[in-house]
Amino acid sequence: MMKLHWSPRSPYVRKVMVAAHELGLADRLQTVRTVVAMAKPVPELMIENPLSKIPTLVTEDGTILYDSVVIMEYLDSLAGGGRLIPASGPARFVELRRHALANGFLDMLIYWRGERDRETPMAAMIDAYTTKLDAILPALDAEIDAIAQTPVGIAQITLAIAGDYMDFRFAQLGWRERAPRYSAWQSTFQERPSMRATPVVDA
Amino acid sequence: MMKLHWSPRSPYVRKVMVAAHELGLADRLQTVRTVVAMAKPVPELMIENPLSKIPTLVTEDGTILYDSVVIMEYLDSLAGGGRLIPASGPARFVELRRHALANGFLDMLIYWRGERDRETPMAAMIDAYTTKLDAILPALDAEIDAIAQTPVGIAQITLAIAGDYMDFRFAQLGWRERAPRYSAWQSTFQERPSMRATPVVDA
Repeated sequence: MMKLHWSPRSPYVRKVMVAAHELGLADRLQTVRTVVAMAKPVPELMIENPLSKIPTLVTEDGTILYDSVVIMEYLDSLAGGGRLIPASGPARFVELRRHALANGFLDMLIYWRGERDRETPMAAMIDAYTTKLDAILPALDAEIDAIAQTPVGIAQITLAIAGDYMDFRFAQLGWRERAPRYSAWQSTFQERPSMRATPVVDA
Repeated sequence: MMKLHWSPRSPYVRKVMVAAHELGLADRLQTVRTVVAMAKPVPELMIENPLSKIPTLVTEDGTILYDSVVIMEYLDSLAGGGRLIPASGPARFVELRRHALANGFLDMLIYWRGERDRETPMAAMIDAYTTKLDAILPALDAEIDAIAQTPVGIAQITLAIAGDYMDFRFAQLGWRERAPRYSAWQSTFQERPSMRATPVVDA
């Protein structure tokens, strides 16, 4: 069994779990609940990952792997390779760039939430997040049809999780009205067994 | 020519520039000065990368790529592949994990600097960064001899840049005394032409 430092609240952990389900590898992952927060490093986790971040994977031979996209590529390799990320060529770099967009968007939402929850949020940061969202949502809405035509991969998984995260933490953004094609695609993707098996819960 | 959104202050841009020099591809990159800050999105950049982040690359066929590690893998592929990241197998995942450690460390330093420069820094965040540094520096010092035995790749490049960034922005941390093996390795790596050609300047 592989060991995965896991939490039901982390969208990055969820990326790995959805990937594992899509690849048929979920039963090879033993999840270990590891609750981290940006301001609360976890000493036991830092033995395996000094950044104190999840997901962190320990493979069957004891190799430690992080971050989420590295683990996803590793799981993909266990399943034969080239399924969640094209193995080479232009399609690989397009998938990696789309994943970077989706994951950078998720990063932004996480930091935005941190800013919002501060005693004294910095207005310039909140404004910057708002401005970037005004660029990101139309960009995703414009590209989602092309993304939807590719096989399920790291970009689609991360985009679906980002959408669900907005529903969960940023309902007031009205993202579904502002990015209707992305929203429609996400609603369908969200019904996949891999997504339904990995709900984000505030527990 | 490829076009690279570039700034002399960004350690992530520097990763790409050092990679380009190591691969002999620097003369195929046209750098375009694009000054970004976390709280200052750049409209022209957001047309190509709605996250408003650098580095962002436009390839010779017009494909847009980001973030830094995606661009580094792309440049590696142009140079034949497998030079900065092993093409497959266990060595690939070790390199990717070491890069994730180095890059996560760099991310932490960037956010730490942002926190430090706030009007009211959050004590819990500063404490968390300090605690993580206490785990990261010994971890890097313990692993650097193994890392030094691999070919120059994305992990070494990022570790060397993180060291230089600490000299530049966090001199008071005393990292060289606290991680003497990492420091000695970094001092040697820093003399490579690729590093000397890409100094970080506050301009």
